[in-house]
Amino acid sequence: MLNRTYENQVCSIARALEFVGERWTILIVRDAFLGVRRFDDFQRSLGIARNVLADRLDRLVEAGIFERRPYQDRPPRYEYRLTERGLDLHPVIFSLMKWGDKHAAPNGPPRLTLHRGCGGEIDDYLTCSKCGARVTARQVEARPGPGLEVPAAQA
Amino acid sequence: MLNRTYENQVCSIARALEFVGERWTILIVRDAFLGVRRFDDFQRSLGIARNVLADRLDRLVEAGIFERRPYQDRPPRYEYRLTERGLDLHPVIFSLMKWGDKHAAPNGPPRLTLHRGCGGEIDDYLTCSKCGARVTARQVEARPGPGLEVPAAQA
Repeated sequence: MLNRTYENQVCSIARALEFVGERWTILIVRDAFLGVRRFDDFQRSLGIARNVLADRLDRLVEAGIFERRPYQDRPPRYEYRLTERGLDLHPVIFSLMKWGDKHAAPNGPPRLTLHRGCGGEIDDYLTCSKCGARVTARQVEARPGPGLEVPAAQA
Repeated sequence: MLNRTYENQVCSIARALEFVGERWTILIVRDAFLGVRRFDDFQRSLGIARNVLADRLDRLVEAGIFERRPYQDRPPRYEYRLTERGLDLHPVIFSLMKWGDKHAAPNGPPRLTLHRGCGGEIDDYLTCSKCGARVTARQVEARPGPGLEVPAAQA
């Protein structure tokens, strides 16, 4: 949990930001929604310093948003999985993405979100535009969108 | 706009966070949704240092999320209003609130969100639980909820 720099705010938004009010934290959670689970994969995806990543993962575990599960004994290695509490952050991540798609993606959405198994696009109200179902985190499938391009530095 | 510390991320979430990936910024935007418009009122609501507030407001204007409008000539005074681009952040603020209500509000939600004119509570899918309408930022009305209490320090 981050410091409470605004102790006097009785507000669920302020409280939520104590857990996820930091950019790397949100990007780590985003990666988890995209299926990333292991330290090295988060590190590669984010290009973040290892000590910063370790700190943010520790906080996310402490906050009950991730759980640490062993996947190897020698040497001991752990992976990080979203808990139910973490999965509940899906609308936060999704709404940030939708805003970015509309206002900061001149080449179109880098990523399309589809209703898994149905294929319909998911609209701003987290509802499948094809079948009308309200979708939850586990029912969303991400696909590359028209705005996705590998930057020159990575090519 | 914040620094791009992750230039190589082709991602609408990362892009959105360049605009709003900072706690004070999100709380300023929250206050704007609650009707705050003037510098002194933001300052009073947030208890934030004036130079920090001025900096964040400047960035929000520069990012096209707020617009500055004169409301007084002598001395010149301005108020800050959400633009359409800013109003589009409503689902982000709303989803943070819903997460906080569920996971960080032991006394219940500090704030209830109702469908203006209808009175129905707004569910997790930004839909009125009474009439079924999908609501936008302008159709949401905030009311004090059971979790609202004035902390001792402010009483």
